[in-house]
Amino acid sequence: MSTAAAVINRRDIEFLLREWLSIDVLLKRPRFENHTPEGIDAILTLAQDIAERELVPILRTSDIEEPSIDAEGRVKVLPAVADAVRLLAEAGLFASVFDERVGGVQLPHLVHMTVLGILMSATIATPSFLLLTVGNARLIVTFGNPAQVAAFAEPQIGGQALGTMCLSESQAGSSLGDIHTRAVQDGEDPLGKRYRITGHKMWISGGDHDVTANIIHLVLAKAADPLGRIVRGTKGISLFIVPKVLPDGTRNDIRTIALNHKMGYRGIPNCALNFGDGHHSPSGRAGAIGWLVGEEGQGLPQMFQMMNEARISVGMGATMLAYRGYLLALDYARNRLQGRPTGVKSGAPVAIIEHPDVKRMLLSQKTYAEGALSLVLYSARLLDEQHTAPTASERQLAEELLALLTPMTKSWPAEWAQVSLDLAIQIHGGAGYTRDFAVEQLYRDNRLNSIHEGTTGIQAIDLVSRKVRRDGGQAFRQLQTRVRATCFKASSRVALKRSQTAVEEAWVLLDAAVAVLLAEADEARALSNASAFLNACGHAVVGWLWLDQALVCDRALENRLNESERSFRDGKLRACRHFAETELPRIKLWLDLATSMSDVAAAMPVEQF
Amino acid sequence: MSTAAAVINRRDIEFLLREWLSIDVLLKRPRFENHTPEGIDAILTLAQDIAERELVPILRTSDIEEPSIDAEGRVKVLPAVADAVRLLAEAGLFASVFDERVGGVQLPHLVHMTVLGILMSATIATPSFLLLTVGNARLIVTFGNPAQVAAFAEPQIGGQALGTMCLSESQAGSSLGDIHTRAVQDGEDPLGKRYRITGHKMWISGGDHDVTANIIHLVLAKAADPLGRIVRGTKGISLFIVPKVLPDGTRNDIRTIALNHKMGYRGIPNCALNFGDGHHSPSGRAGAIGWLVGEEGQGLPQMFQMMNEARISVGMGATMLAYRGYLLALDYARNRLQGRPTGVKSGAPVAIIEHPDVKRMLLSQKTYAEGALSLVLYSARLLDEQHTAPTASERQLAEELLALLTPMTKSWPAEWAQVSLDLAIQIHGGAGYTRDFAVEQLYRDNRLNSIHEGTTGIQAIDLVSRKVRRDGGQAFRQLQTRVRATCFKASSRVALKRSQTAVEEAWVLLDAAVAVLLAEADEARALSNASAFLNACGHAVVGWLWLDQALVCDRALENRLNESERSFRDGKLRACRHFAETELPRIKLWLDLATSMSDVAAAMPVEQF
Repeated sequence: MSTAAAVINRRDIEFLLREWLSIDVLLKRPRFENHTPEGIDAILTLAQDIAERELVPILRTSDIEEPSIDAEGRVKVLPAVADAVRLLAEAGLFASVFDERVGGVQLPHLVHMTVLGILMSATIATPSFLLLTVGNARLIVTFGNPAQVAAFAEPQIGGQALGTMCLSESQAGSSLGDIHTRAVQDGEDPLGKRYRITGHKMWISGGDHDVTANIIHLVLAKAADPLGRIVRGTKGISLFIVPKVLPDGTRNDIRTIALNHKMGYRGIPNCALNFGDGHHSPSGRAGAIGWLVGEEGQGLPQMFQMMNEARISVGMGATMLAYRGYLLALDYARNRLQGRPTGVKSGAPVAIIEHPDVKRMLLSQKTYAEGALSLVLYSARLLDEQHTAPTASERQLAEELLALLTPMTKSWPAEWAQVSLDLAIQIHGGAGYTRDFAVEQLYRDNRLNSIHEGTTGIQAIDLVSRKVRRDGGQAFRQLQTRVRATCFKASSRVALKRSQTAVEEAWVLLDAAVAVLLAEADEARALSNASAFLNACGHAVVGWLWLDQALVCDRALENRLNESERSFRDGKLRACRHFAETELPRIKLWLDLATSMSDVAAAMPVEQF
Repeated sequence: MSTAAAVINRRDIEFLLREWLSIDVLLKRPRFENHTPEGIDAILTLAQDIAERELVPILRTSDIEEPSIDAEGRVKVLPAVADAVRLLAEAGLFASVFDERVGGVQLPHLVHMTVLGILMSATIATPSFLLLTVGNARLIVTFGNPAQVAAFAEPQIGGQALGTMCLSESQAGSSLGDIHTRAVQDGEDPLGKRYRITGHKMWISGGDHDVTANIIHLVLAKAADPLGRIVRGTKGISLFIVPKVLPDGTRNDIRTIALNHKMGYRGIPNCALNFGDGHHSPSGRAGAIGWLVGEEGQGLPQMFQMMNEARISVGMGATMLAYRGYLLALDYARNRLQGRPTGVKSGAPVAIIEHPDVKRMLLSQKTYAEGALSLVLYSARLLDEQHTAPTASERQLAEELLALLTPMTKSWPAEWAQVSLDLAIQIHGGAGYTRDFAVEQLYRDNRLNSIHEGTTGIQAIDLVSRKVRRDGGQAFRQLQTRVRATCFKASSRVALKRSQTAVEEAWVLLDAAVAVLLAEADEARALSNASAFLNACGHAVVGWLWLDQALVCDRALENRLNESERSFRDGKLRACRHFAETELPRIKLWLDLATSMSDVAAAMPVEQF
């Protein structure tokens, strides 16, 4: 396999974090007082070092040698995968965002997300252990009692145990109100209210493995009252901590019954788990022991905290597959000789990067990959604002903006990384279709990102229904204020004129479309082409972020810069213009559809298919 | 793996061949006088039977157990693959389109292509042996001498030997003028001018295997004169027949040095071959023996006949992957229960086909799959016209239209099948990402179709440069005449009004864009956004074909029809309207770009990426 190209362009990260997202301002806040810009650089260098030395080599091997399950239901991962996860733990990367009081190091989410991205660029699946474990521990830290934090969160923060989120069941994927898993109260102990959990969970990433001795499952289940009655729908869902190994060292009643064999993303096992099927007998009888987190019936809102962060992380994973695919295609295009410029019949072949169609594909890749990265890091920055901004109103604004952006941050990178990786394969030609090059795997790996943590269709419903209509467009207007500020600043700059006009036009259309969606009384009609609206929003937001970055670059170009600095910034300006020219015009088409309330598809009788 | 769903909707085929493409008119021509509509039905039933009984089972097994090569360079395929190919030969399917004088059965290309499609719907790779062999034999029949036809074409027509096309080399993929393979004259014998061939060929599908004893390679090489001089560029290319086993039963000097490991399409080996490296010594010395086809320097124009037919077949393969993916997603969506309609909180879950977003995805799949099928079959019908239309002018018109449509027939199905299969996976959710369901494999299999037989970028250059600009837009105007005729007929029908308007508008834009491209003196500028022009043309053509089919359906709906017939036709009308509403608007965007001559991408300095 080609091992060319780094996993990240550090110059780009430097630009995004320092120049564009003002990380130095963030680092001056009390929470981050132990960190310096130089310290952050060192952490990113450490992550890049681990990524390039330890993770790049397992990209392909973990694809070929999938996790396996033996006759006793024990799951094994590739030893190199287990070693890599342990290395991440030793490097302290599980502790990044946590409070010092629970063993954390209080880094900004912006830095944690960048680290995660650098790791995922090397191989997406294995760092997912980190993603899941951090999300799990954060949920326990936020909603659990002190004993639960000490027993179940801190070992994860230290990287001695890994975590999962157990939501889906075979019959309940996107529809969690239909879960069958049941919890029956079983007394109380220092860890809280104890329950016996019975049920089947599906699609559990990291659900079992031999990396760590213990695995902390966070399980959604319905608590039954003494008469066995449950609350219907999502309101009956509660959240339980269900460890693989109980505090007394005995095995909990959890069994892996199968592994799912995926088309990619194979560096982490994906399991079907049985809880409480009697395979083990903790405290002498069947039933998995779990402890309630918070109150009964609060499972879904609690889990949403984890899901929302997980959604940003999924966006980051998709972004970095696109990013790596871009770096690999760029490297290939610079080195592969083939053909000559139009009209030239003889002489030596040129590098294919000289061909206009290859340049077009590379530039599109750049706009998708770097555009997605700006979206995800902007969201991560908002997460920091939500938690550390000086005033309550700033914190609330950040929370509202982040809630609005989350469906886009999750789905835009997932969808457009696939388009971008398709181009990466195309640039490689026949070579890209072979397993001798990494791009075909990146393409397979990324295909999951539009599905897990809420499909793109689910994100579209979330955006229209919960994020735009529920607050009457308030968060949308806040976002629009930021877009207008960027456009205003860009309007006086010649090099940005076209892009600024295109972004402004897109947002005028989007504003009108939001008004139509808000005015629609019938929820089902408003949702009839929700996915087109999501597409339009994602493009409009990324277009704005491109313009906002171009503004920073254009200003810097007024200074004396060396060749490489000038090229870097000119490249960003050109990518911004390419996005404005080739991508932003799509917005009108999507919005026309979203606001037409067309029922050509929605009203199609089943028998006409 | 899910084995649900047939490989084809025969009602659809019946509609396309009989009602839409008037196969009965074709069958009345002298060449096809031995065939009846009932006979054609029987052939299609035979193909479907082979596809569903013999080919469906090897879809997954041939993906898992790739072809292998042993230490002696012998290539083995899965025994079931070899058996299936032999079954196709026994069924006479290699003989379909050939003249009776060479052992053929004189079926229309339209029927042959439909048969190929039905087989490819079950599994694309294995029927590619058929595709390649028929193309190879047709080339020898067309350009070879009688002795070559008897020795090398007839065994392929009988299915006793299989054929390949050996064009690419590691350093010369899309740029055939740069091939290094050399041919040196070596006397003459009853089979023609004999040469010794030396060189390396890459990406050779079916390049070696254990299905048949002999393999007939058609090899592009440059003939050197006695002083070793060759003609530069593509004009120096000649075509040679180079059999694996020579007529005297000895091994020719051909060696398989490696197999390519692809991300899909694994039911046929893809080889790197050495010719004349001295591994064998035919007639006592190194050098592969080959016989010249036609004249020296005619290799590329001759090969183009095979490539053009192969391009239609590639379009058919992509189409059928999309088609099967649609049938599988439809079946899954009808049976998978999940969620409830918007606003409904309780009661039993519904089949996911009831959800608007799933309907949208299924309807898009239908428009892509059935739209692609209409394009490919329309092209196959033109191939029959080219060869059998009553007058010379009709035959020439068909040839010109087919030449114009070929880049679209090759690339439109390839590109949009991938979009369609992406939706098929999405409808399956997490299940679609596992290898327990076929859609992930179809998605991997199809990814090759935008690459082989000329990448989409190459097709775009072919369309703009050779097919539109070279004849001053003449063929385009002929096509436009047909489009106008359809629009005129549709204009009086209420149910088609919107679609007709959308198609008409699209063609007005296309007409203007063609004028811009024709007026551009600078070839490089005209080509600067060729791929956007190809996209636009493909959509405009498929939109027209949808309208043309909808016209037939709408007329039929005036008659008394049973429920299922009515649904079939209403479904086509709805698909036409969905295509007009969601797909045709894209054309303006592509044409704006294609005619802007924008050089944002093309002029990007390499160091700015």
